Amino acid sequence: MDLESIKDPSFLKQMDIPALKQLSAEIRRFLIETLSKTGGHIGPNLGVVELTLALHKCFDSPNDKILWDVGHQSYVHKILTGRAGEFGSLRQYHGLSGFPKRNESIHDVWETGHSSTSLSAAMGMAVARDLKGEKSYIVPVIGDGALTGGMAFEALNHIGHEKRDIIVVLNDNEMSIAPNVGALHQVLGKLRTANKYRRAKDELEFLLKKIPAVGGKLAATAERLKDSLKYLLVSGIFFEELGFTYLGPVDGHHFDALLENIQYAKKTKGPVLLHVVTKKGKGYEPAENDTKGAWHGTGQYKIETGDFIKPADAPPAWSKLVSDTVLSLAKEDARIVAITPAMTVGSKLERFQQELPERVYDVGIAEQHAATFAAGLATQGMKPFLAIYSTFLQRAYDQVVHDICRQNLNVFIGIDRAGLVGADGETHQGVFDIAFLRSLPNMVLMMPKDENEGQHMVYTALKYDGGPIAMRFPRGNGLGVALDEELKEIPLGTWEVLKEGNDVCILTFGTTIPMAMEAAKFLQKQGISVKVVNARFIKPLDEAMLEAVFRTGMPVLTVEEAVLAGGFGSAVLEFAGDRGFSDRIIRRIGIPDRFVEHGSVKELWQEIGLTKDRLIREVRQILPQKQQRKASF
Amino acid sequence: MDLESIKDPSFLKQMDIPALKQLSAEIRRFLIETLSKTGGHIGPNLGVVELTLALHKCFDSPNDKILWDVGHQSYVHKILTGRAGEFGSLRQYHGLSGFPKRNESIHDVWETGHSSTSLSAAMGMAVARDLKGEKSYIVPVIGDGALTGGMAFEALNHIGHEKRDIIVVLNDNEMSIAPNVGALHQVLGKLRTANKYRRAKDELEFLLKKIPAVGGKLAATAERLKDSLKYLLVSGIFFEELGFTYLGPVDGHHFDALLENIQYAKKTKGPVLLHVVTKKGKGYEPAENDTKGAWHGTGQYKIETGDFIKPADAPPAWSKLVSDTVLSLAKEDARIVAITPAMTVGSKLERFQQELPERVYDVGIAEQHAATFAAGLATQGMKPFLAIYSTFLQRAYDQVVHDICRQNLNVFIGIDRAGLVGADGETHQGVFDIAFLRSLPNMVLMMPKDENEGQHMVYTALKYDGGPIAMRFPRGNGLGVALDEELKEIPLGTWEVLKEGNDVCILTFGTTIPMAMEAAKFLQKQGISVKVVNARFIKPLDEAMLEAVFRTGMPVLTVEEAVLAGGFGSAVLEFAGDRGFSDRIIRRIGIPDRFVEHGSVKELWQEIGLTKDRLIREVRQILPQKQQRKASF
Repeated sequence: MDLESIKDPSFLKQMDIPALKQLSAEIRRFLIETLSKTGGHIGPNLGVVELTLALHKCFDSPNDKILWDVGHQSYVHKILTGRAGEFGSLRQYHGLSGFPKRNESIHDVWETGHSSTSLSAAMGMAVARDLKGEKSYIVPVIGDGALTGGMAFEALNHIGHEKRDIIVVLNDNEMSIAPNVGALHQVLGKLRTANKYRRAKDELEFLLKKIPAVGGKLAATAERLKDSLKYLLVSGIFFEELGFTYLGPVDGHHFDALLENIQYAKKTKGPVLLHVVTKKGKGYEPAENDTKGAWHGTGQYKIETGDFIKPADAPPAWSKLVSDTVLSLAKEDARIVAITPAMTVGSKLERFQQELPERVYDVGIAEQHAATFAAGLATQGMKPFLAIYSTFLQRAYDQVVHDICRQNLNVFIGIDRAGLVGADGETHQGVFDIAFLRSLPNMVLMMPKDENEGQHMVYTALKYDGGPIAMRFPRGNGLGVALDEELKEIPLGTWEVLKEGNDVCILTFGTTIPMAMEAAKFLQKQGISVKVVNARFIKPLDEAMLEAVFRTGMPVLTVEEAVLAGGFGSAVLEFAGDRGFSDRIIRRIGIPDRFVEHGSVKELWQEIGLTKDRLIREVRQILPQKQQRKASF
Repeated sequence: MDLESIKDPSFLKQMDIPALKQLSAEIRRFLIETLSKTGGHIGPNLGVVELTLALHKCFDSPNDKILWDVGHQSYVHKILTGRAGEFGSLRQYHGLSGFPKRNESIHDVWETGHSSTSLSAAMGMAVARDLKGEKSYIVPVIGDGALTGGMAFEALNHIGHEKRDIIVVLNDNEMSIAPNVGALHQVLGKLRTANKYRRAKDELEFLLKKIPAVGGKLAATAERLKDSLKYLLVSGIFFEELGFTYLGPVDGHHFDALLENIQYAKKTKGPVLLHVVTKKGKGYEPAENDTKGAWHGTGQYKIETGDFIKPADAPPAWSKLVSDTVLSLAKEDARIVAITPAMTVGSKLERFQQELPERVYDVGIAEQHAATFAAGLATQGMKPFLAIYSTFLQRAYDQVVHDICRQNLNVFIGIDRAGLVGADGETHQGVFDIAFLRSLPNMVLMMPKDENEGQHMVYTALKYDGGPIAMRFPRGNGLGVALDEELKEIPLGTWEVLKEGNDVCILTFGTTIPMAMEAAKFLQKQGISVKVVNARFIKPLDEAMLEAVFRTGMPVLTVEEAVLAGGFGSAVLEFAGDRGFSDRIIRRIGIPDRFVEHGSVKELWQEIGLTKDRLIREVRQILPQKQQRKASF
């Protein structure tokens, strides 16, 4: 059928299984083709084709509420809810989001991006439904990886206690983003191979029947044992202990089993956990055979060969530079241990894992534990390196405050994907970290201008033993600069003058430095002398240099790829106010007070006004009168 | 024995059980007497007397590491580690902390205050121990309430997976701070009454022996069943599923059982969960019979009667004012639902629970879930009121960003214990919320000057349907002002002039308003005219009023009981910079960039410089020259 003609999923009600199978094949073809051009989360979506069709056939969205945990597996859902025609713009500026968005469709009842939120939201929806006396099914779909996130457990605990009707679909693909870890993974593994246990259960019942009727006591025992049977491992006891009716495991690529179990779940009172086993990348060989998570999310690829189409000769990725530098230092310093919350691949820790396996810990999607685990290591004199994306560090905020900063422990936080991340959009933008870290006592926060300074900062961070220290670095590749052979420490709280000047001073750091340099060079030609400072320490500030700048009376322009409220520019304002420079002109550029959606980083910079032209304009505006005359040439 | 003579716990090694029992009685007497004068966490500590003695007898602290989750149950540990003599200063300024503190003792290996962190820290310590090739036992002691916190589950998952030697002591007192909730609570309940199940297990083994030898198939089945036995509920299957050896339940007030099980745990390889059942308040009748959590933490009390000694005629507590106002509105608006993460008592939601039980949800110690549960409710048109302490809101930071603010949902966050909290000290100070909330798009943040304005703000928040709205309010009691009969909406982003003036303008809100008024009145007498503004909206600012103030050219002094970095004063600086008032004098007073320890709020204000005298001094300093001459009279 023509996928673009689909308006809503109601047509599925009439479809028989052969028709559903054919539609699955068409959707797979569509996904493989479309995503080969746009990139996107191909693996997770190929894995849930049958599951999504089965859910939309059995439930009536949007009255029944299907919630996609994390949300990168919602493409099939988007196709079935009238959005196939927009896939050409997937994850592009003003195009289709890669995640559920309530402003895209009434069928997107819950927005996601971060993991493990769907169960809590489902509980909220269920309580609302029951208080309002409405009828509907509430169906969160959560992966085995997301289930390890603590808040998912908090919600399971509450749902199991409250016993409301919620059908939790556990989409178990044995591999979340990185190969899954944790004890829960082992529980699921046992369930997946539960058939032999199931047989044991049948045999026990048979056995009990064989027991000669020995009267009172033994008969009662036998009866009690039958009651206890449901607690045997075979029946998903982990979830049953928490108050759920466990169904499964179900082959997530066979419609018969899926439809039968979903119908059974609909008839079951109270919370149900429907365990569906799927295969990531199902139906597309390169993705299906992927063991490393390379096909979780991709850029463009060649369909026939499964080769990724990459820009030739890109400079090394930031994540790789940081991880490799930590690794090289870890080889000489036995105290260094790397920690990642399920981002071994994203944080480029594979080499670390190969070379020093006992010194790298992938703790699963468990940011809170990751941070406090690091703190625990640090209390024993170790030097933990916590590799974490800016947006996910948000989930460890209290652990950073309460465990790391308050105890002033030597934890090095490598804040990956700091700043705007582009295609993943508003849930993933790493723009709040300066505001939420700068206000914490004991925290050192820095950002390098290029990968050479980056490696020196990594060295600095791992030499530092004064407490927590964090380095932000952006998503994507470095600038391609040469790397010094020898690593050196950068004195804490020191900035670097990149260009001298005496009309206006631009203070900036990280990704926005090239833009500032270009603006300064352009202005130089017009006779405006702009000083550019690499303000690589966001906390502590280089107070000596800042004071010197203010003493000249020069207006100051701060530029940052982070939220303005409480950001670096505010730190400069605070300093000026506290040190008697209240009357200096300080203008701030950064991310305004709203969430920034998806698009290329370049487009987003344009949208929010992080551009060379804007910098030039702002510099001109804050020029003192006499220089303004110069500038009007 | 003389408890003050105890230097370290090594003397316990020689003690037999009768001596331990006698010591327990002495410690109980000491606690009951001392805390009757100082106040403190009496219930939790009376519950762990035998457990603490048994742990310190069986382990060698500090080489063996005992970690106290939450930490308010560490008093007995403090007595055994040489601090009995300091109990007169418990929770007082420069006195003994109510929580473990590394600067108090080498036996305090991990600092706590917030719950559920000990397992992650223990895992870090265990990995450090193993990497360094050291030998030691690592013994986190965690309550059943703290176990519901998501990060505890994240840690259990990691510990069970890694299989390192860690002895988790589950101190199960059937009641954490408030009566416990959640499915896990039911699991524990079943374990507590496990004896009958244990009998069933014995009977099954007996039964299997009775089975006539029917040869191959059946014998193999019986064998397999024996293997499966350990998966029966009787053996703590929930924890065994996660990879732990489960021991218990053990009566936590009987030394024989405790010592035997601890010794057994020491011999067991891999992670152990030792389930100890204790009774909060054990040995002091009023506390032991407490069902409402009133004896969790107390002020002074009369030992004989168990009566609390309260200041007569105190104005109503802030928590009560807020909860009662929400309740009265909830009676007229079926959309209003209250949520608390285990703080029904602390947040004074008992009346709400009695009168509208189906509209109040205590989700256990699960702040993340609480916030996203609220978000889920809001998606369905409900009006959730999330009652949460400022310090615990930190743990839901990502949920506030990602689920509430990003989706712009109508959640009313009642931020209790905002500002300095006093005796609980640095882990509980509610001083970061302005910095971490002000930078979030869509967030409205306000703080009332007194309880009458507070009730109008609650009304305003629950009428508002533009997105998230939060109201901070302090710990303790209101000012005792009269309450209007009729509730009214306060226009969003509007401030209130409390006193006109034209030399200097003080912008402040909440608790610091009386101090500002006093300072202004004092200065008035000296001929300095100070305008005082109730800046009740921290976000959005009252831009019109602020602009008007700046237009006068008056210097501005901002005063806040919150961290200065990124706080309210910074918002004022940002506004001035953005709107062309860069040259205005703006001085900020607030909490400097360090953690503030315990003491009375008054003492802490003095320490950090939040005093009337300081305000007077600062006003004089920022007075323009000509007024300074006036002021020097």
